[in-house]
Amino acid sequence: MEAHRLWIENGWEDHADGLAAVTSIIRVRQLLSIQADQALAPIDLTFSRYELLIHLYFNDGQLPMGHLGKRLQIHQTSVTTLVDKLEAQGLVRRTPHPTDRRSMIVQITAEGRALTGEAITRLNSALFRDLGLTGEEVRTLISVLTRMRRFWGDFEGSWGDFGRESIGESQGAGVE
Amino acid sequence: MEAHRLWIENGWEDHADGLAAVTSIIRVRQLLSIQADQALAPIDLTFSRYELLIHLYFNDGQLPMGHLGKRLQIHQTSVTTLVDKLEAQGLVRRTPHPTDRRSMIVQITAEGRALTGEAITRLNSALFRDLGLTGEEVRTLISVLTRMRRFWGDFEGSWGDFGRESIGESQGAGVE
Repeated sequence: MEAHRLWIENGWEDHADGLAAVTSIIRVRQLLSIQADQALAPIDLTFSRYELLIHLYFNDGQLPMGHLGKRLQIHQTSVTTLVDKLEAQGLVRRTPHPTDRRSMIVQITAEGRALTGEAITRLNSALFRDLGLTGEEVRTLISVLTRMRRFWGDFEGSWGDFGRESIGESQGAGVE
Repeated sequence: MEAHRLWIENGWEDHADGLAAVTSIIRVRQLLSIQADQALAPIDLTFSRYELLIHLYFNDGQLPMGHLGKRLQIHQTSVTTLVDKLEAQGLVRRTPHPTDRRSMIVQITAEGRALTGEAITRLNSALFRDLGLTGEEVRTLISVLTRMRRFWGDFEGSWGDFGRESIGESQGAGVE
């Protein structure tokens, strides 16, 4: 790897493996998005919009706008863009927050729920079923990545952390 | 992991490890950005702006605007936002493309080069030096991720792929 070689040439060899690992994670994350976008294109979804839908799907079908940005770790303006697009597709709808007038709730529609189910099926067969690794390698990968997450104090689970959030907990989420 | 359990409950157990691996990669990528942003905050950089600078730094100090988006795999509007910010900081400058009037070249300034060097030092010590893994685990991680990249036909190197590009090759990059 080119970067790895340059790091060694510059006398940064103690950090070259770390750099290579970080670079590889960033690149594989990009490739996952590309693969997932391809798998979802026939049903007019992108991986970004799927990630938003799956959060709603596994959180009683709704979340406050403010929480979506935190969960997906994207800017609130990007959340707005994704929700606009999903709403235009009839897959989600915005409703007022029951207790916080400044906030909005995003709800998944019946159509959104059906399409999310289809998206899961497509991602299962196009992506999750075969990552080009043996079962043993997949488990090793999960274990090493889990150690990194623990090292950084990450005991929450990103979009894997479904169902732990209710509207009631989200007071003031729209204020950010 | 919650998602893993749900996948098994739904009868998707053949894909549960693949899902867990993908989820972990996405989460670790997020954590890397958070760590890197923290390491770079004292010198008024973000990881996104660093990634753009490092591409210039290792490509003779300049690249066409259109190439930056492809390399960083971000939308051209995001490239514009990053370049605007970097230009306001005096770290890059825009110049006209010598042969393609529709395209612009982004050049790193002397200040940008100095700050990139400092950013590398900070990332080396705050991030690349210690990922919370043993040296053996880091090498295993690199090896497994490399297998995934090969599986998806990825023989280019993302932002690790420095120095392989000249202005001359980039004809029409602004047309995209």
